[in-house]
Amino acid sequence: MAISDILDLVSSDLIEVEKVLDEHVQSPIPLAYEISKYLLGSGGKRLRPSVLLLASGACGNVEGKKRIYSAASLELIHTASLLHDDVVDEATLRRGKTSSNMIWGNKPTVLVGDFMLARALNLMQSCGELELIDSVTEAASRLAEGQVLEVMNSQRMIDFTEEVCFGIIENKTASLIESCGRVGAILANVDADLKNKFSFYGFKLGVAFQLTDDALDYSGNESEFGKEIGHDLLEGKMTLPLYYSLQNADKNDRKRVKDFIENMDMGSGDMSFVFEIVKEYGGVQKTLEKAKDSVIEAKKAIESVPDNEYHKSLDLLAEYVVERNN
Amino acid sequence: MAISDILDLVSSDLIEVEKVLDEHVQSPIPLAYEISKYLLGSGGKRLRPSVLLLASGACGNVEGKKRIYSAASLELIHTASLLHDDVVDEATLRRGKTSSNMIWGNKPTVLVGDFMLARALNLMQSCGELELIDSVTEAASRLAEGQVLEVMNSQRMIDFTEEVCFGIIENKTASLIESCGRVGAILANVDADLKNKFSFYGFKLGVAFQLTDDALDYSGNESEFGKEIGHDLLEGKMTLPLYYSLQNADKNDRKRVKDFIENMDMGSGDMSFVFEIVKEYGGVQKTLEKAKDSVIEAKKAIESVPDNEYHKSLDLLAEYVVERNN
Repeated sequence: MAISDILDLVSSDLIEVEKVLDEHVQSPIPLAYEISKYLLGSGGKRLRPSVLLLASGACGNVEGKKRIYSAASLELIHTASLLHDDVVDEATLRRGKTSSNMIWGNKPTVLVGDFMLARALNLMQSCGELELIDSVTEAASRLAEGQVLEVMNSQRMIDFTEEVCFGIIENKTASLIESCGRVGAILANVDADLKNKFSFYGFKLGVAFQLTDDALDYSGNESEFGKEIGHDLLEGKMTLPLYYSLQNADKNDRKRVKDFIENMDMGSGDMSFVFEIVKEYGGVQKTLEKAKDSVIEAKKAIESVPDNEYHKSLDLLAEYVVERNN
Repeated sequence: MAISDILDLVSSDLIEVEKVLDEHVQSPIPLAYEISKYLLGSGGKRLRPSVLLLASGACGNVEGKKRIYSAASLELIHTASLLHDDVVDEATLRRGKTSSNMIWGNKPTVLVGDFMLARALNLMQSCGELELIDSVTEAASRLAEGQVLEVMNSQRMIDFTEEVCFGIIENKTASLIESCGRVGAILANVDADLKNKFSFYGFKLGVAFQLTDDALDYSGNESEFGKEIGHDLLEGKMTLPLYYSLQNADKNDRKRVKDFIENMDMGSGDMSFVFEIVKEYGGVQKTLEKAKDSVIEAKKAIESVPDNEYHKSLDLLAEYVVERNN
């Protein structure tokens, strides 16, 4: 099913979200607006606003500006983190376009990320509920912690374990999507149990999404994916496809990769044999299986919630995130 | 008068603030805590918490945890901005110690800045008043915009005018101290007029503080100042001491500096003649005069407010910020 069909119920809301996004990054400092607009205007799946709007709808809340504002706020937090991510990763491509850091340099890119984060939280504040601020600031903190953990992984300051890989995924990606589920539920004024269910849905959807991303980084098609393939490894990031393949690899292959990781400056030298090993020992497939497990958990989290069209779309969205190729 | 005497009334509060700061940067990710703690533990004037606590006291509010939490929150926002500032400026020294970016590199420094900002806003949220979130997120947004404007200045993307210099100062530094005045007043439950007066006090104190900093960058003693002298110009930042000296300089000297600014990559080549010209034409003195004017405005903003010991300390603090040599 196409993503546009899945999001049909919230398509007019998403148009409103775009307007609010543009309004809230306007600035008397032209460069702040220019950089913000460039990244916001370069597409993006709007996964976070979609989760929020659908979760709120599944809880019976389908009207009012607060849904739009909070959805825009969460997308802004995400976008701010992408700016900092691209600086940290020295990325050259984002959403199929030259990344901001390559156009304007690291300095304005870092600072405009800060600007967007501050504007995002000011926007969330305008919804008038402290519980929302609590949820998103907690998520933003975990997002940053996940990024720090990822740097520790890529600089080999910590062991390369499954636990670390999941720690990165859960903090960096899943925590913010968890907050989207929670915010949607909070805005519908449901009880604590339902808030937790939609939070957990978002969390598991986020895990599935990131696992799929990690798999696509080894198996995707660059022009569809919109990012460079193999970029994670080039940046020294060791993800689960590599981890699972190493678990299955024979002694020699495992040693070759371990020596390479331990002794070489990643990014230099020929890494193609690592890609071959990941392919040979099924790490991509195992990662995608884990993603599918996470989708099942996401759907299960909300299965007892009364069914409606929004609920159905949440189920379809969960399936979509692991089936996509971009 | 020594700063410790001026802050005597809030000294026990400031000890509480330190505890809260340390508690709120704890993290399961060791590096996030380590970097946060390093910068928080390296001294710093705690000007922002002091303004907040004194303003609240001047409004009659001298008790309760909200003052401590919000003071810690504002110091955390400031500290987060220093981390990003040091990355952007490629600084080597901060508060007399090696800067974080030099020890841990740019990547974790950027991300831990994000972590601190998110934690700061989560902490402010715990005070339970949306008006506080509105004030500090607005200030954090202006802070980032001021930093972007500063980058535009240092990369000569905009004209070097007095207006631009004040734009940087007001956004980058004064807006957050303005918020400290406002938050102190909000927590004392005073009326809108008083909130505006303490905001304006903070704003003008902030302007005076930054003008003095800009002057010390040309005239200070490195070991007292805790930063490298002449660093602004090395980074291409053109500040008011240079601007005012150029206004007074003879044609030849003005041309030499303008040619240097327009044609040279700042930081390369011998810049000592620029320092000579700033010294010769009184730019430092003029900047300090402007700082003193701002102090007068700060004190005037709150002069009609009933007098108490906290009010007296605010007056002394305003005088201190332009008399300091560090």
